[in-house]
Amino acid sequence: MTYCVGLLLNEGMVLLSDTRTNAGLDNISTYRKMFIFEDPGERVITILTAGSLSVTQTTIARLREAIEEPDADGETSILKAPTLLKVAEIVGNMLAAVGQEISDKMNAMKQSASAAMIVAGQRKGGAMRLFLIYPEGNFIEATEDTPFLQIGEHKYGKPILDRVVRPDTSLADAQKAVLLSMDSTLRSNLSVGMPLDLVVIERDACQVTSRRRIEAGDEQFRAMSEAWSKALRDGFVQIAL
Amino acid sequence: MTYCVGLLLNEGMVLLSDTRTNAGLDNISTYRKMFIFEDPGERVITILTAGSLSVTQTTIARLREAIEEPDADGETSILKAPTLLKVAEIVGNMLAAVGQEISDKMNAMKQSASAAMIVAGQRKGGAMRLFLIYPEGNFIEATEDTPFLQIGEHKYGKPILDRVVRPDTSLADAQKAVLLSMDSTLRSNLSVGMPLDLVVIERDACQVTSRRRIEAGDEQFRAMSEAWSKALRDGFVQIAL
Repeated sequence: MTYCVGLLLNEGMVLLSDTRTNAGLDNISTYRKMFIFEDPGERVITILTAGSLSVTQTTIARLREAIEEPDADGETSILKAPTLLKVAEIVGNMLAAVGQEISDKMNAMKQSASAAMIVAGQRKGGAMRLFLIYPEGNFIEATEDTPFLQIGEHKYGKPILDRVVRPDTSLADAQKAVLLSMDSTLRSNLSVGMPLDLVVIERDACQVTSRRRIEAGDEQFRAMSEAWSKALRDGFVQIAL
Repeated sequence: MTYCVGLLLNEGMVLLSDTRTNAGLDNISTYRKMFIFEDPGERVITILTAGSLSVTQTTIARLREAIEEPDADGETSILKAPTLLKVAEIVGNMLAAVGQEISDKMNAMKQSASAAMIVAGQRKGGAMRLFLIYPEGNFIEATEDTPFLQIGEHKYGKPILDRVVRPDTSLADAQKAVLLSMDSTLRSNLSVGMPLDLVVIERDACQVTSRRRIEAGDEQFRAMSEAWSKALRDGFVQIAL
């Protein structure tokens, strides 16, 4: 499995993904699940992926190919699409087509494959937008009422987001929130694992502001995780029944 | 859906269930999901249920019938079974049989029904035991390493249990822990709802020590929930990124 989360805030967007993939419990690997497409200052798109690796890799590869086509246009290239809504449509259509293609092959084994994606981006002159693309290609968009979207193993890490994340949350607090949300997920579910990829995109920058890979031994992450455990235990002790 | 949790601690057992059932989002009702079978001082058994209401109600009704049969014996009555392991077997067999019977009826509609249960109990002279019974009738048992079992919507409320619950946790802290675990679940998932049923069974009492229904407007629960939210937010603010 996977855990990916994206936040759409007044100050910008914060995106976090894990890197664990598994085909059964005895076949575990590390794969990047965060992909950045950038025309710095003009357009930035970040895609997070969850689901069948064969589907997500093929979808991302085809999206790249479409960008590099000599006759690429706004109908096929996510870097040329006129709006972010059109980007979501291109990604959704590609995801659904690849999922269907691979499922057709697996049909003989009575199996199927699918994946979901989070698409976050902004083009110069447009608004920041954050989409969750379903395996069937349709999508929903984050709004002020619910400024975050999650894919994969989303339940363990949802309570902290529900309590802390608002559109006016600062980018620093937002990074803390997604990392603590991931920390809860890592502790409770083996199929989500380090390292992590964390990206911040400031509003109107139209490029990635900061990008960090957090490795398994990361001191800062461990200190934060321990401080959070301590805060939870201290808070727990103080509460009257 | 449902959320039920049971804790097996050195000092006793703590059990909590919600009461929301739904057949679609537009058909929501309140049903007790906690059932107590008691021969005070001799034996206490508490069963928590999650899954298809028709399966759980029929299973509980048949377990009651078996107890009341004039010729009930240790093979059929959970109040006469020689061990708690035998109790788990009787419940498991009944649950699987009822699930199969109802699924057979639903086959015509290409549907099926199933349910899971938590069985907690102690008989005089025996140890306290806590089982999770799967829809197929097989079961697992809580141990010192993992002193809690959950059924239903278990993911939202697992992180707090993972961090706080140990075999030497006091019964007071254990009640706090399950209520906070439920609180996280209630906030993040609509299909779990108040009122709640909370039971404590002290070690070797062989009867229910305390039993409480927590209604939607319960002041104490609301105060605890708000104190926990505040503790989480305060802890969050204090953590350095």
